[in-house]
Amino acid sequence: MTSSDVLDTSFNIQLIQSGKILLSDIDQILKILKKQAKKYKYTPCIGRSHGIHAEPITFGLKLASFYEEFKRNKKRLINAIDEISTCSISGAVGTFANINPNVEKHVAKKLDLKVEPISTQVIPRDRHAFYFSVLGIIAGSVERVAIEIRHLQRTEIYELQEYFSKNQKGSSAMPHKKNPILSENLTGLARMVRSAVIPSLENIALWHERDISHSSVERNIGPDANITLDFALIRLGNILDKMIVYPKKMIENLNLTKGLIFSQEIMLELTKSGLSREQSYKMVQNYAKKCFTKNLNLFNVISSDKFIMKKISPKKLKTIFNYSSHFKNVDLIFKRVF
Amino acid sequence: MTSSDVLDTSFNIQLIQSGKILLSDIDQILKILKKQAKKYKYTPCIGRSHGIHAEPITFGLKLASFYEEFKRNKKRLINAIDEISTCSISGAVGTFANINPNVEKHVAKKLDLKVEPISTQVIPRDRHAFYFSVLGIIAGSVERVAIEIRHLQRTEIYELQEYFSKNQKGSSAMPHKKNPILSENLTGLARMVRSAVIPSLENIALWHERDISHSSVERNIGPDANITLDFALIRLGNILDKMIVYPKKMIENLNLTKGLIFSQEIMLELTKSGLSREQSYKMVQNYAKKCFTKNLNLFNVISSDKFIMKKISPKKLKTIFNYSSHFKNVDLIFKRVF
Amino acid sequence: MTSSDVLDTSFNIQLIQSGKILLSDIDQILKILKKQAKKYKYTPCIGRSHGIHAEPITFGLKLASFYEEFKRNKKRLINAIDEISTCSISGAVGTFANINPNVEKHVAKKLDLKVEPISTQVIPRDRHAFYFSVLGIIAGSVERVAIEIRHLQRTEIYELQEYFSKNQKGSSAMPHKKNPILSENLTGLARMVRSAVIPSLENIALWHERDISHSSVERNIGPDANITLDFALIRLGNILDKMIVYPKKMIENLNLTKGLIFSQEIMLELTKSGLSREQSYKMVQNYAKKCFTKNLNLFNVISSDKFIMKKISPKKLKTIFNYSSHFKNVDLIFKRVF
Amino acid sequence: MTSSDVLDTSFNIQLIQSGKILLSDIDQILKILKKQAKKYKYTPCIGRSHGIHAEPITFGLKLASFYEEFKRNKKRLINAIDEISTCSISGAVGTFANINPNVEKHVAKKLDLKVEPISTQVIPRDRHAFYFSVLGIIAGSVERVAIEIRHLQRTEIYELQEYFSKNQKGSSAMPHKKNPILSENLTGLARMVRSAVIPSLENIALWHERDISHSSVERNIGPDANITLDFALIRLGNILDKMIVYPKKMIENLNLTKGLIFSQEIMLELTKSGLSREQSYKMVQNYAKKCFTKNLNLFNVISSDKFIMKKISPKKLKTIFNYSSHFKNVDLIFKRVF
Repeated sequence: MTSSDVLDTSFNIQLIQSGKILLSDIDQILKILKKQAKKYKYTPCIGRSHGIHAEPITFGLKLASFYEEFKRNKKRLINAIDEISTCSISGAVGTFANINPNVEKHVAKKLDLKVEPISTQVIPRDRHAFYFSVLGIIAGSVERVAIEIRHLQRTEIYELQEYFSKNQKGSSAMPHKKNPILSENLTGLARMVRSAVIPSLENIALWHERDISHSSVERNIGPDANITLDFALIRLGNILDKMIVYPKKMIENLNLTKGLIFSQEIMLELTKSGLSREQSYKMVQNYAKKCFTKNLNLFNVISSDKFIMKKISPKKLKTIFNYSSHFKNVDLIFKRVF
Repeated sequence: MTSSDVLDTSFNIQLIQSGKILLSDIDQILKILKKQAKKYKYTPCIGRSHGIHAEPITFGLKLASFYEEFKRNKKRLINAIDEISTCSISGAVGTFANINPNVEKHVAKKLDLKVEPISTQVIPRDRHAFYFSVLGIIAGSVERVAIEIRHLQRTEIYELQEYFSKNQKGSSAMPHKKNPILSENLTGLARMVRSAVIPSLENIALWHERDISHSSVERNIGPDANITLDFALIRLGNILDKMIVYPKKMIENLNLTKGLIFSQEIMLELTKSGLSREQSYKMVQNYAKKCFTKNLNLFNVISSDKFIMKKISPKKLKTIFNYSSHFKNVDLIFKRVF
Repeated sequence: MTSSDVLDTSFNIQLIQSGKILLSDIDQILKILKKQAKKYKYTPCIGRSHGIHAEPITFGLKLASFYEEFKRNKKRLINAIDEISTCSISGAVGTFANINPNVEKHVAKKLDLKVEPISTQVIPRDRHAFYFSVLGIIAGSVERVAIEIRHLQRTEIYELQEYFSKNQKGSSAMPHKKNPILSENLTGLARMVRSAVIPSLENIALWHERDISHSSVERNIGPDANITLDFALIRLGNILDKMIVYPKKMIENLNLTKGLIFSQEIMLELTKSGLSREQSYKMVQNYAKKCFTKNLNLFNVISSDKFIMKKISPKKLKTIFNYSSHFKNVDLIFKRVF
Repeated sequence: MTSSDVLDTSFNIQLIQSGKILLSDIDQILKILKKQAKKYKYTPCIGRSHGIHAEPITFGLKLASFYEEFKRNKKRLINAIDEISTCSISGAVGTFANINPNVEKHVAKKLDLKVEPISTQVIPRDRHAFYFSVLGIIAGSVERVAIEIRHLQRTEIYELQEYFSKNQKGSSAMPHKKNPILSENLTGLARMVRSAVIPSLENIALWHERDISHSSVERNIGPDANITLDFALIRLGNILDKMIVYPKKMIENLNLTKGLIFSQEIMLELTKSGLSREQSYKMVQNYAKKCFTKNLNLFNVISSDKFIMKKISPKKLKTIFNYSSHFKNVDLIFKRVF
């Protein structure tokens, strides 16, 4: 048994153990996200594309989307751990010249690993590249949630706030200032975990039956990427668990554009009544512009247009301007996810 | 149905089609590697670690190791294609506010896709990051083979040569000079495919229910990474198919160190005869140094040491210096792989 | 003269020409930024750290900060062009074995290049890595401006809007929706230009007197990174030139926290009057919390505290709540920059 | 003075101090390279392109090429240190609202820094991105030298060997086996330093007047990239200082192709005698192929061709097959470099 055999298999075991810790971190996040998604299942807020108000959504849907993403990450991480769950005890160049293949078999079984079908002096490094790539993807998901929180905590939006411990001082200058520093920290940490991916890919092309260039890389990214992601996942779990949500502010923001977000549905309703899409679009567009420029309420403006009110009943109009109609399929989506 | 729904699903379909082309490229490589591995199953050559001669191996084993790696890549690519085989037709922010979820179901079925359980305005980008990460890993494997070929074609090693077409001129200055330019080209292309991974990971954290920053990235890496890898895989297949192997030179290189590569086994044999490991190591080390410095043949030197020859029979010694003993498990390894 | 000599020098010439185009793009941006910075020199808006309101700033200061950054980028790009402005005509391995060094000198002079002091078969690739690194940094600056614009155009903030051409339709569903798609596009393009940096760094370590692995990389990133950045810079110039600024909305946002942003200065003023920092902080913090929770105006609340009003004169208090006091050094900063 | 002002300026000071250590490391490498280049100025060895023998070179030229590259790196690093040698004490959003700009001036002078012309809450991060990019380039140069050493120490080449301390054991199995593990280690470390570049570029686009996402990145790459590169440079210096060079083996390798490397010059000489380039090429090519296939010496073969010997005098032929003619410009190149 060469020292490479021992060191290489034990590196895999260390990675597997790290991977399992990350798995339990993700399980914890899933638990928290599920709890919070259900709590805010029907809490209305504005959905935004391009940072611009689009249509109503619920805060629970946002969380459910994160939940589903972490479910995918869990599956990927299980695959990644499986990829590196191999054992190689095959001698200096992988030929079993001076060691019986049964030793490998025996050790693999004892360590709950699979036998590496064919190795050089080391276990092939595409396996490890896969593992670190998956960490990079998980880091991307962490960043996605962190960015959402940072956006929602902006002064102008303020729909949500990171937990702020009793003893924690705010800005030394402005006592009321509560910065989403935990999520900002996660954004940076995501960059760090991501930065381990390229070196792990560069490690694949070792010379002949191995060169040892991968080793100094792995001594760095092995502990660093795993520990950083572990820290990030735990921190993310805490943020999601303890975040302070402001549903009232969410409603306020929803109403910020005074009904403009419902313009699409009015247009669709007019189309149903027999108008061409062009006509309907033009009509609604003009009102939308007017409301926007003069800061008027679209409901009021539409209500006073006799032509339109012949096409759309007052009851129907009320329904349109009620965002609960947007949530008729929330339950269906939740059933798909949870 | 919003234009995002259509564009986003059709991007996935394009990626899937690209992925399937890459899959068939890999199948072709697997076929060639299998053929060549079997052809060279027992062609002896030196195994090298750190670029230094270690122990005998067969050229077929090298190829079998590549085969197994591409088998893994095939599995990863199938998973990656599966990851992006989803369809989302869920409206402006994913709520199905103005579209019946059955439309999504229907279209998904028609297109042989799965329904995206929960989408925003777009299909979540961790899926695509996974796809491009897998391309990066495959590129790493391409580079590994390319580097091996470049090494083996070095003037001093010359165990192998890239195919050189009849009409192809060598260096304009030196007519005999045949450079492994195809494999060098692959080394560079691997860098390019790899460079798509980080942007794809950066694409995950879109703002709220989507921002469109991922789009300009995907319009680049979508075609570029796929086409580059397709080109690289086909080129690699051709190189492996048409390479000219020099088994005689492989034997010459094997014998370059005049038996020093068998020093380990003599030491082990001495240990079996009752000597301590330290004693055996010391004894063999001295002879090894002597041979190396004076350019002697280790077999001759050992044969003339009476003490050792009492411990090791002449027949046994011959066996030790015969590399075929190193190949007793080649068949076992081939059975594991093929 | 070998073909490598010719090809390599002509690649440098191509890069230099690309670099000069980028330089003129940056000059254009500088011109626009200068114009706009002066126009909005004293246009008040809120300064934000962590996405949270901090202290007043002017919109001109934001632009001046970008201006200074692009001035640095210009200097870096000039250095980068200088780095690759060399010519090497030194034969197959750089020894001038079959060519007179005066040829190199002559050609260099004709092409307005410096002689490469020592070359292998090629010009050393650390020079090109420097060039592409600088493109990566410039892309980062493009992203910084783009992100600022995307933030300022958010529905809740709306201090600014990308130019929207007469014929350009907004969202097909919501006629009023104007998305910052140009800046989002730039964010993605920045990722692309950045992705060229690592391959260019990997190109440095060529084997011996050259291997050709760098070539396939450069055939990609040579045109792609330059053209992408050229496109991005021109687009950025247009955005900055034609952006629609809403100073009224900037003031509205400034007043959003009803004077809380001036809490630091009240605290400092109290300290000057003899109170300890702890006392002052505590006092102001309590009022700040009260205002924030009950949506009160800090000026009114402070004005009615007799204890404080003994320490701070009414006139002084008014000055504090007037952001123009924050702008007393704007001119100094402008003088430093322009 | 805000805590950001203090922390941010002190981060720069730390980077500057690290940078200065790296500068002295580079100075040490330059000293060693100069010494060794002069020592081996006329030590002949084969120049290789594509890993294939090309034309003679001297080992000193290889070292001079590294010397020139590190000279460039020194200049880049000085620029990078200069880029981050700024001080910003400008308040919460960079307006000097509550602090006199003279404080900044005063502190800057005391700390031997320049005043940052315009800052937000922090010093702009394009400066730091430049610094880390330069570290990435230097790492690329380290890798270039390390790869050269690894190649030259290969069993088949063996022109050079890393220093091997008295107490250092070789491979536990093969006592003569001396692996270039230090240079392999450097290859991996280069990947690590390079991996800091992208995060530093991602740090540029902070939100508004700063977000703190850059901080967790810098707390990692600040110490890690600097310390890793410091370690790598010192190790590289030691390798270059203590390497064992085998000039005899270099000559052996030079002669490996039995004069084929001089085929270009024979062809050129024939051209001078009046033959067309096509004719000359064809003629030499045929002989080259013959020599290569039958393992003959090109000099002998050419000498016995009467037609050629009428065109080239025996004395001239001898000169052609003498590599010293290749070194006629070595001194010129050395004068350019040193």
